Amino acid sequence: MSDRKIYLEEKDIPRKWYNLAADFKNPPLPPLGPDGKPISPDMLAPVFPMNIIEQEVSTERWINIPEEIIEILYRWRPAPLRRAVYLEKYLKTPARIYYKDESVSPAGSHKPNTAVPQAWYNKQFGIKRLTTETGAGQWGSALSFACSIIGLDCKIYMVRISFDQKPMRQTMMRVWGGKCVASPSPDTNFGRKVLKETPNTPGSLGIAISEAIEDAVSDKSGKTRYSLGSVLNHVMLHQTIIGLEAKKQLESVKEKLPDVVIGCAGGGSNFAGLSFPFVCDKINGAKITIIPTEPTACPTMTKGPFAYDHGDTACMTPLLAMHTLGHGFVPQPIHAGGLRYHGMAPLVSHAIKEGLLEPRAYDQIKCYEAALLWARTEGAICAPETSHAIACAVEEAKKAKEEGKEKVILFNYSGHGLMDLVGYGKFLDGELMEYHLSKDEMDKSLEAIKDLPKP
Amino acid sequence: MSDRKIYLEEKDIPRKWYNLAADFKNPPLPPLGPDGKPISPDMLAPVFPMNIIEQEVSTERWINIPEEIIEILYRWRPAPLRRAVYLEKYLKTPARIYYKDESVSPAGSHKPNTAVPQAWYNKQFGIKRLTTETGAGQWGSALSFACSIIGLDCKIYMVRISFDQKPMRQTMMRVWGGKCVASPSPDTNFGRKVLKETPNTPGSLGIAISEAIEDAVSDKSGKTRYSLGSVLNHVMLHQTIIGLEAKKQLESVKEKLPDVVIGCAGGGSNFAGLSFPFVCDKINGAKITIIPTEPTACPTMTKGPFAYDHGDTACMTPLLAMHTLGHGFVPQPIHAGGLRYHGMAPLVSHAIKEGLLEPRAYDQIKCYEAALLWARTEGAICAPETSHAIACAVEEAKKAKEEGKEKVILFNYSGHGLMDLVGYGKFLDGELMEYHLSKDEMDKSLEAIKDLPKP
Repeated sequence: MSDRKIYLEEKDIPRKWYNLAADFKNPPLPPLGPDGKPISPDMLAPVFPMNIIEQEVSTERWINIPEEIIEILYRWRPAPLRRAVYLEKYLKTPARIYYKDESVSPAGSHKPNTAVPQAWYNKQFGIKRLTTETGAGQWGSALSFACSIIGLDCKIYMVRISFDQKPMRQTMMRVWGGKCVASPSPDTNFGRKVLKETPNTPGSLGIAISEAIEDAVSDKSGKTRYSLGSVLNHVMLHQTIIGLEAKKQLESVKEKLPDVVIGCAGGGSNFAGLSFPFVCDKINGAKITIIPTEPTACPTMTKGPFAYDHGDTACMTPLLAMHTLGHGFVPQPIHAGGLRYHGMAPLVSHAIKEGLLEPRAYDQIKCYEAALLWARTEGAICAPETSHAIACAVEEAKKAKEEGKEKVILFNYSGHGLMDLVGYGKFLDGELMEYHLSKDEMDKSLEAIKDLPKP
Repeated sequence: MSDRKIYLEEKDIPRKWYNLAADFKNPPLPPLGPDGKPISPDMLAPVFPMNIIEQEVSTERWINIPEEIIEILYRWRPAPLRRAVYLEKYLKTPARIYYKDESVSPAGSHKPNTAVPQAWYNKQFGIKRLTTETGAGQWGSALSFACSIIGLDCKIYMVRISFDQKPMRQTMMRVWGGKCVASPSPDTNFGRKVLKETPNTPGSLGIAISEAIEDAVSDKSGKTRYSLGSVLNHVMLHQTIIGLEAKKQLESVKEKLPDVVIGCAGGGSNFAGLSFPFVCDKINGAKITIIPTEPTACPTMTKGPFAYDHGDTACMTPLLAMHTLGHGFVPQPIHAGGLRYHGMAPLVSHAIKEGLLEPRAYDQIKCYEAALLWARTEGAICAPETSHAIACAVEEAKKAKEEGKEKVILFNYSGHGLMDLVGYGKFLDGELMEYHLSKDEMDKSLEAIKDLPKP
């Protein structure tokens, strides 16, 4: 088969999302409230609309995608499945390397796959305005885009250091009508408190989350809600359209089930999106190696324990059962901003616990080497996060060569790197460092969760 | 027909480029040398390889695309033809608006369509190294990419003010192995001379061209040549793959010939690429309105005379018969850097003279308004250059509504704007100005060509 680009017709777009929670042999542990007891759906109602909360707690295997959402997704979906023939040739591997190209969305990553349904369900519920936080800016851009198309106001609290370093990301959000402020901001009680105590703070994702939640719950009109771009079950659900499309596309070129499925994982959503439909096959007996990849600077899955922990630094979220490095963990300043998160999606964490996944960690230098090889063979410039998937795909392709096996490798090309060229520049200048989290640092960070309930 | 994305299979990629020079009723005027006489091909030999010079002077209608070049183009070609259904709906127009999406190339624009063949022909001719200039950086990025894939060294002289303002463009070139220096540079005699006389100059495209040509012709080994990204006949030729694909794609959805064809034009290559195959239909009697669009700040086609002029400021190139504002013209600092060129491709200029094209000029404010409308309906963020085509498409779609006519409008989406968000920020902040070239300014600039031969 010579075609490098495998398209799916619009009429063949998946009409349902796949919910992995329906298929685990052992059910995942529930989130806990401040009292240590499982939370009820209505406890989340001030933060999320009830139609999204229903998805969050659902154990239905298939959930219908409303036609109105599909109509919006058609702007870029179905996304192409592509074959990396130029990289294969360079590596002289017998493996066939396929990748799902999520960089084709208007915001440049997989994030709009959940931003659009989240905005749509909020609109259906009568909500007028969404708040969120953003670190590197990918998620804030995606939600701004979705709110622009659907007709909601959007306020983004962007970690101050990123806000200052990435003015183009702010502009991108503004093009779609989003209002972006540096966090901590003077717009919330919590922000004002932090600014008063530490006027020169660079900010953090934890502070930004706290501000976005405070903003949402304190709107007296009840017309504002909060939106999260990863970690939660409904986010994983919306992203499964990636893997469901990929399956149809592989079938359309008479390809078998992949031997290896790879995605980088920060909060877990792009990895889950591609892999969960294949995790289902694995539960049903298929032999697939499924690899979430992460940075050695933030080795949540490969080093962090499975524990109950908060999703944010300020401990405002329920306790989630997940792999974590402790909610106070501050990773080294690697350039894959989307992978600098202390926790991991509960569904991904549970799949690891069930023995379905084989996480691996890569250092950023090795990842940039893979990104450069990609640009100089396939042509495109990938996001620093995506390079963690490419590094693994290259490793697996070399292994297939050593073993002389015609393997099928599938990975998620989660986004382009056109807004992230600063890291490439530092790599080319030899200014990047290797970062490996030490056991001492990790143990110190885990102190913060020692008194929390144990799973 | 509901499909918004019209793909072409790899096997259906055009196998020949179309040469408009074969079909004009009256032949275009030849380039002239310093003596005022038509130049011979061998006079160009120190600058370009002979296989490219042959294409430059060819009057064959169809020129074969070597299979090895097609194999490289497959990284992103055939490019999608898309239908702007969301914009149509917003405008409530009976027109069907199609656009050829050239933003999908690794460098993000149509430029690699000629960078790849130019690098390939140079490599075939035994050349080891290419030099070029770049203003905003699109062309430098494209040539770096092509040289990386084909295996040539690449040196880019980038106008100093752009070099300083757009560090990410430099990084992009470096990712593909290109060497980018600020021009004027200490690397050439001409650069050193300019630096000595005006150490703080912001540079100009004219200076950068002079440096790149000097670098190429002064390599004693004879293994360096110069490469140009627009204006010349062979560049227009390579770009016709855009229009040839678009024709096949329109046919594949049973669409008639377009009523209106639109492309923005700086040097003319993306416009020519889409439109020349349709200009051929028009010569053969089809009723098509074909519109090259330009900025009111640099109204080469709508205000500039048809005259003999140099392609560069330092008068190193032959005299070309073209629409020009004079080789010393310095346009106002609009953000569509790719449209700030004093001249226009001789083939495009000749087509205007033959009455085949209807050029229009748009102010940058109106163009950014069109770009914002595009982002908030179709989703994607376009290049500032491309917005000059969108503004015209919107105008034509409104006209079709007024006339109650079901027109087919086709335009070239020449590139994305992800590297050009500064202009969007200024537009959103209300800091952009309208620029209309005055007759006095133009007359003053045209003084520079008053003693040159007349066409």
